[in-house]
Amino acid sequence: MPELILHEYARSGNCYKIRLTAAHVGAVLERREYDIMKGETRTPAFLDGVSANGRIPVLQAGGRFLPESNAACFYLASGTPLIPDDDFDRADMLRWMFWEQYNHEPNIATLRFWHVWIGEAGFSDLQRANEPAKRAAGLAALQLMEEHLAAHDWFAAGAFTLADIALYAYTHVCEDAGFRLADYPNVQAWLARVAARPGHVTIEV
Amino acid sequence: MPELILHEYARSGNCYKIRLTAAHVGAVLERREYDIMKGETRTPAFLDGVSANGRIPVLQAGGRFLPESNAACFYLASGTPLIPDDDFDRADMLRWMFWEQYNHEPNIATLRFWHVWIGEAGFSDLQRANEPAKRAAGLAALQLMEEHLAAHDWFAAGAFTLADIALYAYTHVCEDAGFRLADYPNVQAWLARVAARPGHVTIEV
Repeated sequence: MPELILHEYARSGNCYKIRLTAAHVGAVLERREYDIMKGETRTPAFLDGVSANGRIPVLQAGGRFLPESNAACFYLASGTPLIPDDDFDRADMLRWMFWEQYNHEPNIATLRFWHVWIGEAGFSDLQRANEPAKRAAGLAALQLMEEHLAAHDWFAAGAFTLADIALYAYTHVCEDAGFRLADYPNVQAWLARVAARPGHVTIEV
Repeated sequence: MPELILHEYARSGNCYKIRLTAAHVGAVLERREYDIMKGETRTPAFLDGVSANGRIPVLQAGGRFLPESNAACFYLASGTPLIPDDDFDRADMLRWMFWEQYNHEPNIATLRFWHVWIGEAGFSDLQRANEPAKRAAGLAALQLMEEHLAAHDWFAAGAFTLADIALYAYTHVCEDAGFRLADYPNVQAWLARVAARPGHVTIEV
């Protein structure tokens, strides 16, 4: 594997996913921090040299750049047990990773950002208008996880995979966004299983 | 591969992606149609028997169910040239597929649904409030594609892959949502390349 550089904002759950995957597969990442609150991912240098999409994380591998957190995790975990060998199981793992980006992250991660980084007093009118729908969708996402985990220890393939890493990142900090983990005992037990895996690292690194 | 059933709403671009992938790999799909406008994916029978997430598409393979359009495409294309062998190229293909679900579909597909299925006169206050931001984000997504395609014939790996199929689905009907393809000549040329591939099928099948 070429030299790896993670372009990141460390407190982002999307960036943490990549560090957690790297820890589990033994990949060494050089880390470069960008302050998203100062617009450091929207500068010409970032847009031209790192990612035209203007967002972190971006995983740099030698001279190539890979945006999108779950794609970066997939790259790092290629050929490891974090990605199932079976075609259906591998697709089922990706199913949860796509679901995370569509149904979980835009609600739970976005509300965390709004509440912790902006604060309710600073909400725009559009944020204020969207908060109830994002709250309801975030609750529905946590409930779907709760029901799945009633019958399964892990999200896909009967094993700890990238699906668990992707979903762990923002679920374990969902109380920042005003969600209550105590309402989801199966989710809490699964969070503890993830955190107990050998090689686990916390978001605070 | 086990018997395949696509639970779908045929006019959805997310469902079309799966039919297009199946056509390219020679997989035969039995199709079951659900009228999303009548809530047919929110019935107890659907939630308990097909997908607890209450959305189409879901690809059924034998007795197992796979929600999420891009995951279903990945399953069908396993072991075919639609998925690159190289680890970085495969992750880069997934990067565009995750980007599609995060930056493209929630804007372009959602505006298509609002404008064609609901109609502006029927917009809720929240839809009306969100339309400008979704319009701007959809324009940014098309612009990012335009710039990428200025230097590349395909999205990933220098070849026609699932990234092209995933992005084609809603891009080729983006005028339904009020976007103008004439503003994006590189995108138009790429759409023509996708449609010219042997085995291509249209959304109207």
